[in-house]
Amino acid sequence: MEYSFSKSVEALSSSAVREILKLTQGNQVLSLAGGLPAEDSFPIAEMREAFDRSFDLGAKALQYGLTDGYLPLREWVAERMKQKQMNVGVDNMLLTTGSQQAVDLLCRVYLDEGDVVLVENPTYLAAVQLFQFRGIRAIPVDGDDEGMDLEDLAAKIAKYRPKMAYVIPTFANPTGKVWSMERRLGLLKQCKENNILILEDDPYGEIQFDGNAPYRSIFSLDEHPTDSCVVYTSTFSKIVAPGLRTGWAIGDTRVIQMMVKAKQAVDLQSSTIDQIALHQLLSHFDLESHIAKIRASYKERMEWMHELMTKQQWAGVTWEKPRGGMFLWVNLPENVDSEKLLALSVKEGVAFVPGKPFYAEEAKSNTIRLNYTLLNKEDTELAITRLGKALAQYQQQNQAVTQA
Amino acid sequence: MEYSFSKSVEALSSSAVREILKLTQGNQVLSLAGGLPAEDSFPIAEMREAFDRSFDLGAKALQYGLTDGYLPLREWVAERMKQKQMNVGVDNMLLTTGSQQAVDLLCRVYLDEGDVVLVENPTYLAAVQLFQFRGIRAIPVDGDDEGMDLEDLAAKIAKYRPKMAYVIPTFANPTGKVWSMERRLGLLKQCKENNILILEDDPYGEIQFDGNAPYRSIFSLDEHPTDSCVVYTSTFSKIVAPGLRTGWAIGDTRVIQMMVKAKQAVDLQSSTIDQIALHQLLSHFDLESHIAKIRASYKERMEWMHELMTKQQWAGVTWEKPRGGMFLWVNLPENVDSEKLLALSVKEGVAFVPGKPFYAEEAKSNTIRLNYTLLNKEDTELAITRLGKALAQYQQQNQAVTQA
Repeated sequence: MEYSFSKSVEALSSSAVREILKLTQGNQVLSLAGGLPAEDSFPIAEMREAFDRSFDLGAKALQYGLTDGYLPLREWVAERMKQKQMNVGVDNMLLTTGSQQAVDLLCRVYLDEGDVVLVENPTYLAAVQLFQFRGIRAIPVDGDDEGMDLEDLAAKIAKYRPKMAYVIPTFANPTGKVWSMERRLGLLKQCKENNILILEDDPYGEIQFDGNAPYRSIFSLDEHPTDSCVVYTSTFSKIVAPGLRTGWAIGDTRVIQMMVKAKQAVDLQSSTIDQIALHQLLSHFDLESHIAKIRASYKERMEWMHELMTKQQWAGVTWEKPRGGMFLWVNLPENVDSEKLLALSVKEGVAFVPGKPFYAEEAKSNTIRLNYTLLNKEDTELAITRLGKALAQYQQQNQAVTQA
Repeated sequence: MEYSFSKSVEALSSSAVREILKLTQGNQVLSLAGGLPAEDSFPIAEMREAFDRSFDLGAKALQYGLTDGYLPLREWVAERMKQKQMNVGVDNMLLTTGSQQAVDLLCRVYLDEGDVVLVENPTYLAAVQLFQFRGIRAIPVDGDDEGMDLEDLAAKIAKYRPKMAYVIPTFANPTGKVWSMERRLGLLKQCKENNILILEDDPYGEIQFDGNAPYRSIFSLDEHPTDSCVVYTSTFSKIVAPGLRTGWAIGDTRVIQMMVKAKQAVDLQSSTIDQIALHQLLSHFDLESHIAKIRASYKERMEWMHELMTKQQWAGVTWEKPRGGMFLWVNLPENVDSEKLLALSVKEGVAFVPGKPFYAEEAKSNTIRLNYTLLNKEDTELAITRLGKALAQYQQQNQAVTQA
């Protein structure tokens, strides 16, 4: 049998990074690579009780359910969204297998092969891969610490006639960036004028460190939320636990209904019992204090990593202290190829994600993404020390090559 | 905002049937429409304990897991597949959100727009929709009670150069058909010779009534299972419970790895906790006796429905008693349009699925699919009586029209 795979999956670049990261499984390598929440943040005992209570519903807990998701959980999410000035009802919403699936479903129902999506550069790695997988062109828009550059946005809209813009305006992955209000409004205005759908991906919005008022979602700034140009997606992965694989998408009912139709074709529905258990948890749980604890703990971890890195006094290495989220985005000296550095680092016993796959175009190969939420203080210290060793080694080898 | 959806989702026919079936929700309509397992077949108490035990694993139960699925559950499935003469290891396998997702993922990695898949006619409704959604041409092969007609298969292969064949050889949905060994071997031979991948969908194989030895899967008949032209998919939905949304696909590692890559892009992974809980259940549970009970109970329900229908003495209505599975496939008199009959039936208080959407081409509009697993004896009796009334009413109206 000679297999002949689809063009789309052949286009999914086989990742050198994934191969290296595979080497880290099951041995002593400390990982700053993933986007895994701290395991001590999971409400294990409460979740156990929530599952137990779910079975009080009897067979319903194990039967097929609605494709759009368990109604009481959708009601709960709608209520929470309203508190964040997003005026939605249960019909504006669909529960998904993590917010990753929401991105996939929206692509499926809204974009054809060859269509253009505007993105930040860098942006979420898996979104870049997904666009690639669907034959969608991801065109980067220039940006700075405040978000997308509105002039470049206008130029790119005129040049490429995009159908969609994909953004993570609050504590972005990988950069930790927060868009200013001006840029949020600017994006919204230009997209509305040009009939461009905005996919606002907000997995990290709740993980805020800076004590400011919560940042307004772009969805909430739209004046006509029942005819919105924004589809907003978020997840329970970072505020409860990722293993339940429960995210949601909200938007105009017509878009949501199309996504439901697509979901019915691809997997019928996500887990019934997980959605019921989540609803059980949230009905008996002080989520606000739980989120406050996660924020405090992640802030402490971020500060600790920042402090450790500062102490290392790495020449030519810079980063911004994130105001929220789970990642530190690091610029290495221009001569450092972070994929090569990864190979050395893994030997030293530490892993990270090189920056390259986060870029749709013009990748900067001297960037890396570090996660600070998974490891404890001790292991973070060890990991940063090891990273320092790998960096020193890299520079030494590099010098040797230059001199040779 | 003017939405402009993708060509693929616009192609997903909006179903008149779905609209009618929506009317049945929340009122007194008895449903023979769905494919829902009997709720008294769910091991609720055991599943509750299994979830409880899963939390003994601590944070791992709620953390991200592997895209291919929870290893101990894959080991369990591999062991079971081996008992069914399918020689596979954990690397030949991927756990999915129901077997529906396995069909979607294989389409994504193996087929491009315009590619041809050979199908039975009728075949699984959601597969037809999925092919339509992906712009894949589903070409029906003639068949009889023994499976696909091998001469027509050869002709269609020569004419359409298909890349894949999609079949449900054991207790098919919707027909309940079982392929003979000769047809299984014939399909395998022709596909091997012509480099055609077979997707063998087997959700119902365990639900056997006829007391024969289990029917051999086509996958198990392949002499070179490590270079197989068969991808086999099945699910826990019918033997444990569908709300856990756990299915699996097995095949050559190269195909499976591609599907894993695709799954990573579309939803990262299915629920961690559900997979762990299933493994916990299966480690403490007599699955064989459980399946034996389901078989006995479904056989009794099927016989009961058959008896009720026979008693009705409907003129020109025929069906085959299924040897397994969950459905009765019924031929109505030629003049009956089953979609129109559905509208009448719903008013009488009973719903079913008209046969049309199960056909890739040349739909017979005088067919219907009845599910016998969900309702209890009393409700089944009531449902069949109501169906009889609707049918009589239909014929009366029809006569009136003809005479007018």
